[in-house]
Amino acid sequence: MVIDCEQNDVRRGLVLINTGPGKGKTTAALGTAFRAAGNGMRVLILQFLKGSWHYGELDSAEALSSVEGFRYVMRQLGRGFVKVGGAETDPEDLAMVERAWAEASAAIESGEWDLIVLDEINYAIGYKMLHPERVAEVLRGKPEMLHVILTGRNAHPTLVELADTVTEMREVKHAYQKGILAQRGIEF
Amino acid sequence: MVIDCEQNDVRRGLVLINTGPGKGKTTAALGTAFRAAGNGMRVLILQFLKGSWHYGELDSAEALSSVEGFRYVMRQLGRGFVKVGGAETDPEDLAMVERAWAEASAAIESGEWDLIVLDEINYAIGYKMLHPERVAEVLRGKPEMLHVILTGRNAHPTLVELADTVTEMREVKHAYQKGILAQRGIEF
Repeated sequence: MVIDCEQNDVRRGLVLINTGPGKGKTTAALGTAFRAAGNGMRVLILQFLKGSWHYGELDSAEALSSVEGFRYVMRQLGRGFVKVGGAETDPEDLAMVERAWAEASAAIESGEWDLIVLDEINYAIGYKMLHPERVAEVLRGKPEMLHVILTGRNAHPTLVELADTVTEMREVKHAYQKGILAQRGIEF
Repeated sequence: MVIDCEQNDVRRGLVLINTGPGKGKTTAALGTAFRAAGNGMRVLILQFLKGSWHYGELDSAEALSSVEGFRYVMRQLGRGFVKVGGAETDPEDLAMVERAWAEASAAIESGEWDLIVLDEINYAIGYKMLHPERVAEVLRGKPEMLHVILTGRNAHPTLVELADTVTEMREVKHAYQKGILAQRGIEF
């Protein structure tokens, strides 16, 4: 009788969620992507709501991707803010989320990436601009080895259920409480 | 009478701590450093206990630093594991932490960096290999604009008190619980 000692060594792509009210949801995804790129993985980061504000990571992503053997692509698909509130949701925001999801789902199904970060998608779902079941369906059918990270507060229960790893970032103490503004360089 | 509307706009370097049992402590620091590097900041990441294992981020850091205008330096100062347990702590580990702290404190005082990450330093302190007051003293005297991020579980109360921002990463759900091993590329 041959015992398969590797039966628990399930090498497959994971679905991870970074949620909670604290800092580090997006930066942990960026850091994981940084690590993955160093392991030769092809990384795509799609930012669902961010847009108008130029974040430092866009320049770092471009710089890293300019090095042979590294693929770290970041795209902003929003406009930096969202006008929300039930029936009052701006149709333009809805259309942007729709286009962002079309791009994200196509990227997931393409097989061209090893890690895809859907940054702030949890907000788009939370604001009812994107139905969680649509996201769950695409994640269930994703290429086996593809890793996907979803970020944003209040991750939807449907996606928490589906995910392999869910981390909650909790704020113990924040500089804002001391009257210190966001610092260029590390906060954005 | 002139009212100083910018009185709360205290532009200065922050001390941040990423702690807690969940994932994302180191990767959030790496991601923040990635953002900072894109903003033209000089970034140094000193890993206190990591050493023997080759992490993907080392290659990404080297690649990013090879691009003109980017400075993202990462150094492993440990040997990948620690033999601990009160009086049984291996003298070699103690010596390594001592050397690591000498390098870290010199880097902090040098004025040559805009962001320094002291990765896993909380473990060295927790294992009583480094006294928290020594770290606190150097942080209190750091260059005003320098940002410092400390990572690792069980951040010491002295450092939590001193820090501007403390984030706790909490594990809601983990792939290990499902019998899935650490995945090359994203877990290391």
